[in-house]
Amino acid sequence: MKMKALVYHGEHNIALEEVEKPVLKRPGDAIVKITKTTICGTDLGIYKGKNPEVADGRILGHEGIGIVESVGEGVTNFKPGDKVLISCVTPCGTCDNCRKQLYSHCRDEEGGWKFGYMINGTQAEYVRVPFADNSLYKYPETISDEVAVMLSDALPTGHEIGVQYGKVKVGDTIAIVGAGPVGMGVLLTSQLYSPSNIIVIDFDKNRLELAKELGATHTIVPSENLVEDVKKIAGPDGVDVAIEAVGMPATWDTCQKIVKAGGNIAVVGVHGKKVDFDVQNLWIKNLTITTGLVNTNTTPLLINGVSTGKLPVSKLITHKFDLSDIMNAYDTFLNASDTKAMKLLIDAEK
Amino acid sequence: MKMKALVYHGEHNIALEEVEKPVLKRPGDAIVKITKTTICGTDLGIYKGKNPEVADGRILGHEGIGIVESVGEGVTNFKPGDKVLISCVTPCGTCDNCRKQLYSHCRDEEGGWKFGYMINGTQAEYVRVPFADNSLYKYPETISDEVAVMLSDALPTGHEIGVQYGKVKVGDTIAIVGAGPVGMGVLLTSQLYSPSNIIVIDFDKNRLELAKELGATHTIVPSENLVEDVKKIAGPDGVDVAIEAVGMPATWDTCQKIVKAGGNIAVVGVHGKKVDFDVQNLWIKNLTITTGLVNTNTTPLLINGVSTGKLPVSKLITHKFDLSDIMNAYDTFLNASDTKAMKLLIDAEK
Amino acid sequence: MKMKALVYHGEHNIALEEVEKPVLKRPGDAIVKITKTTICGTDLGIYKGKNPEVADGRILGHEGIGIVESVGEGVTNFKPGDKVLISCVTPCGTCDNCRKQLYSHCRDEEGGWKFGYMINGTQAEYVRVPFADNSLYKYPETISDEVAVMLSDALPTGHEIGVQYGKVKVGDTIAIVGAGPVGMGVLLTSQLYSPSNIIVIDFDKNRLELAKELGATHTIVPSENLVEDVKKIAGPDGVDVAIEAVGMPATWDTCQKIVKAGGNIAVVGVHGKKVDFDVQNLWIKNLTITTGLVNTNTTPLLINGVSTGKLPVSKLITHKFDLSDIMNAYDTFLNASDTKAMKLLIDAEK
Amino acid sequence: MKMKALVYHGEHNIALEEVEKPVLKRPGDAIVKITKTTICGTDLGIYKGKNPEVADGRILGHEGIGIVESVGEGVTNFKPGDKVLISCVTPCGTCDNCRKQLYSHCRDEEGGWKFGYMINGTQAEYVRVPFADNSLYKYPETISDEVAVMLSDALPTGHEIGVQYGKVKVGDTIAIVGAGPVGMGVLLTSQLYSPSNIIVIDFDKNRLELAKELGATHTIVPSENLVEDVKKIAGPDGVDVAIEAVGMPATWDTCQKIVKAGGNIAVVGVHGKKVDFDVQNLWIKNLTITTGLVNTNTTPLLINGVSTGKLPVSKLITHKFDLSDIMNAYDTFLNASDTKAMKLLIDAEK
Repeated sequence: MKMKALVYHGEHNIALEEVEKPVLKRPGDAIVKITKTTICGTDLGIYKGKNPEVADGRILGHEGIGIVESVGEGVTNFKPGDKVLISCVTPCGTCDNCRKQLYSHCRDEEGGWKFGYMINGTQAEYVRVPFADNSLYKYPETISDEVAVMLSDALPTGHEIGVQYGKVKVGDTIAIVGAGPVGMGVLLTSQLYSPSNIIVIDFDKNRLELAKELGATHTIVPSENLVEDVKKIAGPDGVDVAIEAVGMPATWDTCQKIVKAGGNIAVVGVHGKKVDFDVQNLWIKNLTITTGLVNTNTTPLLINGVSTGKLPVSKLITHKFDLSDIMNAYDTFLNASDTKAMKLLIDAEK
Repeated sequence: MKMKALVYHGEHNIALEEVEKPVLKRPGDAIVKITKTTICGTDLGIYKGKNPEVADGRILGHEGIGIVESVGEGVTNFKPGDKVLISCVTPCGTCDNCRKQLYSHCRDEEGGWKFGYMINGTQAEYVRVPFADNSLYKYPETISDEVAVMLSDALPTGHEIGVQYGKVKVGDTIAIVGAGPVGMGVLLTSQLYSPSNIIVIDFDKNRLELAKELGATHTIVPSENLVEDVKKIAGPDGVDVAIEAVGMPATWDTCQKIVKAGGNIAVVGVHGKKVDFDVQNLWIKNLTITTGLVNTNTTPLLINGVSTGKLPVSKLITHKFDLSDIMNAYDTFLNASDTKAMKLLIDAEK
Repeated sequence: MKMKALVYHGEHNIALEEVEKPVLKRPGDAIVKITKTTICGTDLGIYKGKNPEVADGRILGHEGIGIVESVGEGVTNFKPGDKVLISCVTPCGTCDNCRKQLYSHCRDEEGGWKFGYMINGTQAEYVRVPFADNSLYKYPETISDEVAVMLSDALPTGHEIGVQYGKVKVGDTIAIVGAGPVGMGVLLTSQLYSPSNIIVIDFDKNRLELAKELGATHTIVPSENLVEDVKKIAGPDGVDVAIEAVGMPATWDTCQKIVKAGGNIAVVGVHGKKVDFDVQNLWIKNLTITTGLVNTNTTPLLINGVSTGKLPVSKLITHKFDLSDIMNAYDTFLNASDTKAMKLLIDAEK
Repeated sequence: MKMKALVYHGEHNIALEEVEKPVLKRPGDAIVKITKTTICGTDLGIYKGKNPEVADGRILGHEGIGIVESVGEGVTNFKPGDKVLISCVTPCGTCDNCRKQLYSHCRDEEGGWKFGYMINGTQAEYVRVPFADNSLYKYPETISDEVAVMLSDALPTGHEIGVQYGKVKVGDTIAIVGAGPVGMGVLLTSQLYSPSNIIVIDFDKNRLELAKELGATHTIVPSENLVEDVKKIAGPDGVDVAIEAVGMPATWDTCQKIVKAGGNIAVVGVHGKKVDFDVQNLWIKNLTITTGLVNTNTTPLLINGVSTGKLPVSKLITHKFDLSDIMNAYDTFLNASDTKAMKLLIDAEK
């Protein structure tokens, strides 16, 4: 049987194609009919050739929601017909890292973050989901499709790697450096912990405007006075938590300059080169610096947390497309500064 | 009244001199007659001119034990005659940082780490101790002078900034990069948490031999195969915790290369220049990197912890001197690679 | 000099009287001119004779805000004219318990919770505040008097002993058993941690109505089906956190019956008799049960947390009185079920 | 095929019998040839009729080591021939409780603590192990059979429910009330965290003598002065952590009377009736009280922790038997006060 899917054929070469519909391979697998999916910055990175290890013919995408079509004999929590959220991480659940809830470092070859990278992904009509019992989640009716699709990756990443690793707490002043989708995930989920001041920093004024709608208390367009601008808000010691959500030396540098003694820097961005760590100034400051890939161990908690509807998650969705039109969706996302695209909702049934 | 003290007069210029005996200045002060003191690597740094901010005439030293001679009217926990441990950190106890137990960043001008730096120190017959209620500690008879003097700085620093910030836990494999006094403090206090493997790395074979006596399970002299040598012991993923106890780019670099996904790097060394942070490899590894100056908030706990005598702390003391001979003590410590000096015990009553 | 104060003369015997204005006694003292105060359930308990240890002549009250009039020579953080919040707990800051932030168990005879109990309190024109550096707090203009006076005791108690000890976390379903002032403090501060469902249980429908306004998602009037009623909302396993906010065997019993395996029971109520602990059913349930008196170590954090104005704290204030009319205020509060009184704001300047 | 096994036939009715050798049923199963097993107090409880829900014909036992004979197709971490430790808890790994590492409350009918209770156990030549990937552990050669068999249940239970839940930390004074196998498991594993004083309380002097050999610093035979006796050692405030390791109202009562403000009571014993909780005295003491069944989530950590051989675990083994002689082993264990039995090592190959 055939289905539509967005297929990667090397740098700058992707296409919507007819391919074989996936089938069950391992006892823990499920086949899910995708209803909605989206595009992540990582997908753009693969498109641009940053990950030459991705095989020709790979279906991209690691986010989405859908309906379970079939399950392997080892699957106990799901059955055909279940409406599910697909997590970007597929944990085997039994290796040493999974036993420590470090699911992102699962030892299985199909475990961890593999969708749209080492195994076929979700920008398709169907997807095979390994370790379905650990990779799929039911969610209540009160969560809309727009919100649910953010729970595959954007919100857990922001929450775990930004907010939890950064130890955001009641009354804190925090700075989020970068207002892309990941930064916005941090912005939204940080509010679950009631910081007093949330400063969002980005060059793109459209994004800063959206950040305000999503809950930022202050926004800053970076200038040569950036550090002073932050301290005008945070006080002379700087911020309690600085969250790096871009992945560039300059944004790291901002973080290390604005964090106060005893504070936290959470690196959420995907970095391509080394950075200068000013340890000659910072060794004395009792800092905690964290890095990481999302484990999705907080997905159940976030499902409950966003089900109250208090966070304006659905505002993250700026555009909607059909799967048949996904090439235009990529174009729109690739030109985000012009199109003001933040997250796109792609209807995989059309 | 006069007393003997080791006085700093600028780069490479220290002398044992007769100076005025200190007097009470603030209600929280105590005057302590020093019985034993020691020399820290920081003192050598000041001697070598690394801290030009230190005033001419400053008495050096921030470690020691003694007998309370007099107390200000605001002191409630101590009285003349009490045998006390002097902490290297003097917390005001009421500023915002002290209220968070971040005593090293106390806002008071005499608060935090100020002895032998911004106020007169302990390499003398007497010392004025600010915030005596928070800066002095009683300790049981079961703790010898040799052990007690290590509780001023060496053990709390190793414990808090190395072991606690590094989250050393039962069964871990840890690496301590640097076998100087601070590294040895980490080595001793880490054993309170029962790691399985403690790898100590240093160029100095004498120090590695001492490390074995102090509890190291493995020692390594660094070569170009250092990372492989560590992984032969720790396994291919590397160590759970890497503790940087020197303060050089090379030792930092070792740490970032040997730590496993989900692991910790604790920077304990005093760094003089920036380091390269290979975040392009490490962003994905879910690391926690910490820095810091000791808060001495675990001093009471360590006093109890070492009182059982299970840790061979007193082996850290390699040499003994009288205060009248402290110039020789500095010489001995400055030439540690020849003299095999680790920590010196200085009798301040002679 | 004389001032007005509410004075205790034994069981059921209190009076508004002219008494001596307090003066500085110890170096850490401050004299504060009270602007607003309030009455706590504990004050009613003393009035009713539950604390015969309270001396004849004691001025009651442990909550309030005011203006610093004078400070002892040991006070460094405050000066005359400062607008301050008075904490119900006065920590010496230097005893072993204070060093562990267990301020409620301060060893000093004027340390811990002593206002209106062992030392004169805040239902007066002036109060002497021991350990002023640790007992007073500045707060921003964005916090109204109505909110500020809740920060002396009601909010920190709810937050520390209910929410933090109960480990309320994102997405939890929690039950608050008792909708008096303390339960309401739990209700308000729990929302800082984003639980999904907050069930408030009380016999008084007025209080349940107010609870809804303050953020409860569900309310229950207890019947013989109480446990089932809770589980209809929470699911068959019960709640993540049950918070006992009354201090009676029956409310404890509800908590132990509705909490799920792996959950928490936080006892906030003041109990007068032993309770039955059904450990024969609960030993297997991996529960955490906590008790405690507020430490006020989170007061700084709460000041920041409520300064955003997101929590409707001021709705807790149901009545306003002048200090000259405080006998009526006691009457109103003693008859809370009729008067629907929750918290009263008392203007100490009138 | 037939094998020998200890079979339960109702109250006071057990027998060594020839029964069917188990076969694989579910994809995650393994069949393990038992080499060594032991008897737990829980097994005695079943024998005595405390668990009428146990079916006639059930093979008892939930501890042991062995060799994997065969594995289901879903098992990835083990293969025939692997030498393994069998955990007393068999977690499905995918239910909501397992995802929170609350393995003891696994939702699967064969998940959690089911061996020798709801499914056939380890006092046999072979056992079928559900969820083998999560229920079996490899361990290094440095761990002897005597030590390994203690890692099935006794040490993890003591460690998780006693030491970790009780938050034993460096320098603490702790009391272990009850010197049976579980109390001894607490005693051994508590030493991994370096408390200063370990007080063991029991009526049986033989057990107290063994406790001393296992690391107790003090032992007490309870008298009417028990609380005073503890406080003579611990100081007037009492102990930091009181660990209830019997399961009787009297031992609970001791715990609630000897714990200091801010301290912890960890209930490890299996309780058969309710206890009096003196909350009228304890509500003010900022206590944490925990209960629970072992999750075995720290088994990997303990395997590493005991592999250094620092803890005298093997001294727990007081008697050795062959499986063919297991009826005598039960007799010996049932008469522990006479036979001085603590843990028995049963050779399942003989």
